[in-house]
Amino acid sequence: MASGSRGASVTALDRWLARKLVAAAGDAPVEVELWDGEVAHRAGPAPVGRLVFRDRGALLTCIFSPELGVGDSYAAGRLEIEGDLVSTIAAIYQAIETSGPRAFKRDLLGRLPRARRNTRDGSRAHIHHHYDLGNDFYRLWLDERMVYTCAYYPSPEATLEQAQVAKLDHVCRKLRLRPGQRVVEAGCGWGALALHMAAEYGVSVRAFNISAEQVAFARERARALGLDARVEFVEDDYRNISGRFDAFVSVGMLEHVGLEHYEELGAVIDRALATGGMGLVHSVGRSRPAPPNAWLEARIFPGSHPPSLGEMMRIFEPYRLDVLDVENLRLHYARTLTEWLARFDRHLDGIRATYDDFFVRAWRLYLAGCAAAFRASTIQLFQVVFSRASNNALPCTRAHLYGADGPLWAVK
Amino acid sequence: MASGSRGASVTALDRWLARKLVAAAGDAPVEVELWDGEVAHRAGPAPVGRLVFRDRGALLTCIFSPELGVGDSYAAGRLEIEGDLVSTIAAIYQAIETSGPRAFKRDLLGRLPRARRNTRDGSRAHIHHHYDLGNDFYRLWLDERMVYTCAYYPSPEATLEQAQVAKLDHVCRKLRLRPGQRVVEAGCGWGALALHMAAEYGVSVRAFNISAEQVAFARERARALGLDARVEFVEDDYRNISGRFDAFVSVGMLEHVGLEHYEELGAVIDRALATGGMGLVHSVGRSRPAPPNAWLEARIFPGSHPPSLGEMMRIFEPYRLDVLDVENLRLHYARTLTEWLARFDRHLDGIRATYDDFFVRAWRLYLAGCAAAFRASTIQLFQVVFSRASNNALPCTRAHLYGADGPLWAVK
Repeated sequence: MASGSRGASVTALDRWLARKLVAAAGDAPVEVELWDGEVAHRAGPAPVGRLVFRDRGALLTCIFSPELGVGDSYAAGRLEIEGDLVSTIAAIYQAIETSGPRAFKRDLLGRLPRARRNTRDGSRAHIHHHYDLGNDFYRLWLDERMVYTCAYYPSPEATLEQAQVAKLDHVCRKLRLRPGQRVVEAGCGWGALALHMAAEYGVSVRAFNISAEQVAFARERARALGLDARVEFVEDDYRNISGRFDAFVSVGMLEHVGLEHYEELGAVIDRALATGGMGLVHSVGRSRPAPPNAWLEARIFPGSHPPSLGEMMRIFEPYRLDVLDVENLRLHYARTLTEWLARFDRHLDGIRATYDDFFVRAWRLYLAGCAAAFRASTIQLFQVVFSRASNNALPCTRAHLYGADGPLWAVK
Repeated sequence: MASGSRGASVTALDRWLARKLVAAAGDAPVEVELWDGEVAHRAGPAPVGRLVFRDRGALLTCIFSPELGVGDSYAAGRLEIEGDLVSTIAAIYQAIETSGPRAFKRDLLGRLPRARRNTRDGSRAHIHHHYDLGNDFYRLWLDERMVYTCAYYPSPEATLEQAQVAKLDHVCRKLRLRPGQRVVEAGCGWGALALHMAAEYGVSVRAFNISAEQVAFARERARALGLDARVEFVEDDYRNISGRFDAFVSVGMLEHVGLEHYEELGAVIDRALATGGMGLVHSVGRSRPAPPNAWLEARIFPGSHPPSLGEMMRIFEPYRLDVLDVENLRLHYARTLTEWLARFDRHLDGIRATYDDFFVRAWRLYLAGCAAAFRASTIQLFQVVFSRASNNALPCTRAHLYGADGPLWAVK
């Protein structure tokens, strides 16, 4: 414990700092309780939640470093958040975002040196850090297909299982997959999309991933489903994709690519895409360029960067690739993450049997914090559809994504 | 005539230059005929069209300045294009775009000094140049509502009239207009969208335009339709928009704003948009940043610039505006322009009674050249929907654009 102040008496300075913290958080409707049980800040008749600091060091850390400090203090149990975790964090994000220049200078003091770069070796280390935690862990709280990306809710009442299948179909429809086509997937997770494309749309797939645990799982599932002749899982970097394909798809990998490699990714796409080819990139993003949340980047997703749409264009604009369609699924990811957190909580006993309290608290904060950030619109989810510029065999409208089977253009 | 070579005999150098021209145009499947009737370049068994140079000066001009030179030579009748005008130009654009670095260095020699900048006075001069040509002229070849922007074809068989109404509705649905809302429109043309929004969606509209002829026409139509109490046409610059509105819409104005004013446009939107507000910007664009076609910019649309999607983000990213949806309607504009050209040609006699041959040839080249550029994908049409970041009252899916009435999210 940094300051050894647990149980130490609260001073006027501590109270002033607690109020300063809330002011810097845009006067979010949250209360602050200090380590002696005193409520140093009240928030009107209907506070959304309460921050409870267990010692003075935690309070100071959160003031100096609101991203990294809050994350680490919460994970260590030196900061509690009472009330609904997602709603409380969302209220703070919303208040910060709307309060303008008064708000936190984001982690100017607390920002760590950036993770190593996303070179081939760097990427492998970063991906191993998160995705090789054990398939059994993810199986506890993901849907049955193990889809670890934003679901697509045709209506708010859909279940997570239904919404993940709807997402897979939404992606396939956007790519206009037809039987016999060849598809390459960059970053395939546990293989759900690759297997769905092959089983339901009759295509063959080469799917790349550098997480050893995920690839092993995906290969096993392909065998079990009798799809191993048409779906090849390749444990390799997306930069090593070779061959020509009718479609390129990447769902939830771009976050890990790093801005400095976008043009390289564009070159891979350009090399891989056949004449008339279509592609889709699905990624967490931002409405304006900004560094990732310092705690998430340091502790959960090393090397990650959610791009703005303008930054994403660095992939496409250097090449003869036309953006056809962009859809922002921000609130779908808020819903997905809230559901993951609920499932995580239902399996807390099982998770605690394997992982320590720090890990469990960090993961709950990560899931709730991301749900809150999507709800407060500090992060976005962009699905970008593109094609080779030479491709005029395009649907007239997007009605085919919504049940109707629309006509194609017939121009040369 | 620059070189006085009409009827002058063709030399070996002329023939070499003619073949060089086709090579620089990516070996497009076009023939070249020179001023003495000799076909200096043949293009296999199925040429798309034939370029006929009436004098040596025209050939040289087109080689040194493929954009400005071709435009001016064609308008002056020193270059003829035989065969279907749109298909021939499209074939050349497609060949140039796919042939890579061998192709034309775009008008390095022929580029004129840029038009004056889009200051308030500059914009007024630029808009007057094009849009105040006389309403009677535009009435001859536009649809009955005088919509001078890309139509939206629900199917390729739709008429221009149907497709323009479908476009107005597509825009209104994207904005989710509801009765009683207040809408501001930046650049309203002859007022078709403003009047449609008020008549069909029950909103009130303030619509800005600096073309005096268009505003006079629009006001007259509002009175005739009994909509003048709910639609106010303001002859003023978009930068002078004041007040707060539930929706901001701009269809076909951004092309004239100029890149250096995008952040200023964003500030206007930010100032004008109420909490929960939605917006739509519809513009000709490009798949990568590039200067506008030199001839179009010099002769047809002074001060214009079709932005890349990345460039368009300069409007939104500095502010708390989230991009929700981008749709590329490139082939819709190819179809719209082809239809405008056909109507223009049906009224050639009437147009020639008022305008000289240079004007008529320039306008046919402009309409055909733009249709060809959309077909060849050298230019795009982006419809961008955005909202205030604080807005969570969003539809779950885009199904409501395609007939189904989808549910809204219900999160705070």
